[in-house]
Amino acid sequence: MLQKITTPKKADWENLCKRPSLSRKDLDQTVQQVFSEIKRNGDNAVKKYTNFFDHAIIEDLKVSDKEIQESICLVGEELKKAIALARSNIEKFHTAQIEQKQVIETSMGVNCWRESRAIENIGIYIPGGSAPLFSTVLMLGIPAKIAGCRNIILCTPPDKNGIINPIILYVAQLIGITSVYKIGGIQAIGAMALGTETVPKIDKIFGPGNQFVTAAKQAVLNYGVAIDLPAGPSEVLVIADKSSNPEFIAADLLSQAEHGPDSQVILVSDEETVIDRTIVALKNQTEDLPRKETVIKALQNSKAILLQSINDCIDFSNLYAPEHLILASEDANDFASRINNAGSVFLGNFSCESAGDYASGTNHTLPTNGHAKNYSGVSLDSFVKKITFQEISREGIQNIGPAIEILAEAEQLLAHKNAVTLRLKSLRDV
Amino acid sequence: MLQKITTPKKADWENLCKRPSLSRKDLDQTVQQVFSEIKRNGDNAVKKYTNFFDHAIIEDLKVSDKEIQESICLVGEELKKAIALARSNIEKFHTAQIEQKQVIETSMGVNCWRESRAIENIGIYIPGGSAPLFSTVLMLGIPAKIAGCRNIILCTPPDKNGIINPIILYVAQLIGITSVYKIGGIQAIGAMALGTETVPKIDKIFGPGNQFVTAAKQAVLNYGVAIDLPAGPSEVLVIADKSSNPEFIAADLLSQAEHGPDSQVILVSDEETVIDRTIVALKNQTEDLPRKETVIKALQNSKAILLQSINDCIDFSNLYAPEHLILASEDANDFASRINNAGSVFLGNFSCESAGDYASGTNHTLPTNGHAKNYSGVSLDSFVKKITFQEISREGIQNIGPAIEILAEAEQLLAHKNAVTLRLKSLRDV
Repeated sequence: MLQKITTPKKADWENLCKRPSLSRKDLDQTVQQVFSEIKRNGDNAVKKYTNFFDHAIIEDLKVSDKEIQESICLVGEELKKAIALARSNIEKFHTAQIEQKQVIETSMGVNCWRESRAIENIGIYIPGGSAPLFSTVLMLGIPAKIAGCRNIILCTPPDKNGIINPIILYVAQLIGITSVYKIGGIQAIGAMALGTETVPKIDKIFGPGNQFVTAAKQAVLNYGVAIDLPAGPSEVLVIADKSSNPEFIAADLLSQAEHGPDSQVILVSDEETVIDRTIVALKNQTEDLPRKETVIKALQNSKAILLQSINDCIDFSNLYAPEHLILASEDANDFASRINNAGSVFLGNFSCESAGDYASGTNHTLPTNGHAKNYSGVSLDSFVKKITFQEISREGIQNIGPAIEILAEAEQLLAHKNAVTLRLKSLRDV
Repeated sequence: MLQKITTPKKADWENLCKRPSLSRKDLDQTVQQVFSEIKRNGDNAVKKYTNFFDHAIIEDLKVSDKEIQESICLVGEELKKAIALARSNIEKFHTAQIEQKQVIETSMGVNCWRESRAIENIGIYIPGGSAPLFSTVLMLGIPAKIAGCRNIILCTPPDKNGIINPIILYVAQLIGITSVYKIGGIQAIGAMALGTETVPKIDKIFGPGNQFVTAAKQAVLNYGVAIDLPAGPSEVLVIADKSSNPEFIAADLLSQAEHGPDSQVILVSDEETVIDRTIVALKNQTEDLPRKETVIKALQNSKAILLQSINDCIDFSNLYAPEHLILASEDANDFASRINNAGSVFLGNFSCESAGDYASGTNHTLPTNGHAKNYSGVSLDSFVKKITFQEISREGIQNIGPAIEILAEAEQLLAHKNAVTLRLKSLRDV
């Protein structure tokens, strides 16, 4: 069960904010070996490692149209309708993030603006395992499509029979993923970063994964490939007061805890009774969960902290910088403006984290492990570059040119100065 | 002189887009040694390495108020006025990037929005050397200030006498940098990433640097610190047609070439006479430059490429993905919409790159080395996190809750489902 801590000293807060340390094995050598073999042997190397790591013999790495078509029949109507609702909300929220061109005349005759351009080649990684994480296909594929990315490919490991879960294939075709490949782990990340006969070289790789995938994603930065976010286990922090519902809080903490034994959940409150009731509710609700063992392990990393005031709770939360932050209070709106560090914030007793995980429309790919201090979650921005443009007229260069000459000379960059001097001279000579 | 290439086959384009390979020495061990010593000994380690690398004995790492005040007297009025113009334009362009809160009701009762929050602690690195790169202080400090970052610190190496160039100090105080430290190289990046008695721990580090700084910036990612952009030498690509001015093109190519011997400049055109005249102009203009030797080395990495059409020129440029792209043509506006990969684009014969480097208002910290395919340049966005918020009413959870239950069950995440089920039940029970 999670550890209860009563009004710790501020000096101890930083320690309480520490995440369970990641026992990240040194996988760099393995990653380098797989990558260099993919560079030499392309598809054959990918197939070799798919056999080695996933125990599957794959003839065609690319999922066929036939398999895609079959998947459509294998997904039930009720699930299709739920997916359609989630898709619609995610589309609405991310479409609103399209930026309109706005021309700024900074000096007379000097017009500057930004335009977004899609990153051309996007790779989405979806882990395998028992549950098909199709919601992440929605969260990454939909904004990529709205951004206008040309190639949006998806890699996910096959099971031992070479099969991909049909819900993943159904969602991929629904939202317009270009191609799906039966590749997992290091070899998937390597194939996307380097390109093979079958897999196109990708500009940016998105998606969660185990420690092999994490190590491989870190390595692709050396190949000029970008990634979505640094990796870390999922986490939630709940700020509760006397208006909170302990049953709801317990359910939210558990929905985070079931992600994995290294997940972390934190409850902070200025009301001891809320903490105590939540702990009772946690015990009761845990009993019925199929992932009970995972949940119990995650709760061992977790804390319920009584603090002296809601202000302290907010300060603590900003120091922790949680991936998910639930303001489980009727006064949530008053707290929200003081939140500085969080991935996604859920206001009030009816905004549960599962809503954001699936269907409210916000993105669920968020900064973990304290990175909410310096990274945003995935949004439409993650799939575009914002290019600056400037158009300077004859009048414009006459207005700012003399200043540029002075500035360039002060930096001892005389060729920079000369580029202006020549232009100003040409205008005087006319 | 730069290499002239006439209508190369498309198959050869990718090879022509290769940057001079970076002879990046393996500095990881040096970086780790300096970092671990800073972790153990703080300021003393920083001072030791300042003595070792910069040959300066520094008593007070932090620049004093007295030094700042003196710097104000040491900068001439003409330069102050030029800095004021640059500052004003940079402020206008970056202030326009402030995003307004926009609440999207994705389903009835489900309100989602984003709010920007400043990254609290920002570190700016400014290299030393003969020229004081105060323009980069403007480009990084101004948007940090607009974003509302709480601590904006600046590290720059002192000269042998422990002195920082007064123009840097003048600009730092002008735009409201919190503190300036006399620290350079690996020890500067390490001090900001780890924090010492004097230097606060920083969330994100910005700014250019040599190979030591580059290696150190790469290493801070492992400490949870973010950085602005992957590093690489500066570069420009010019697209020219018969309406271009060869003298201007030559001046623009040279203003890039003077940055360093590893800079690269590329001219592509559908007009052989423009290329030939530019080469003549290059030779003439090079003669008078104080950085002639640097320029000549950079030109050896550089190419003038004749292509069959302006369309080919644009395709080539998109493949090269230049940091700076000059559309040196009267038809620049027609080309601009087809530019997909570039850091910053300059339209027409009077939009010289120096304008963007100093004073037009756009940012000069841009993606190099082909990263314009998957990274944006520095903007206000670089200094904030965009946090998503959601507020779901009783009606809202009733609208989307049943879909969330189905989706969570399909992913076998039953605690996620339960968080919704409990809430829906509580509403039925009322």
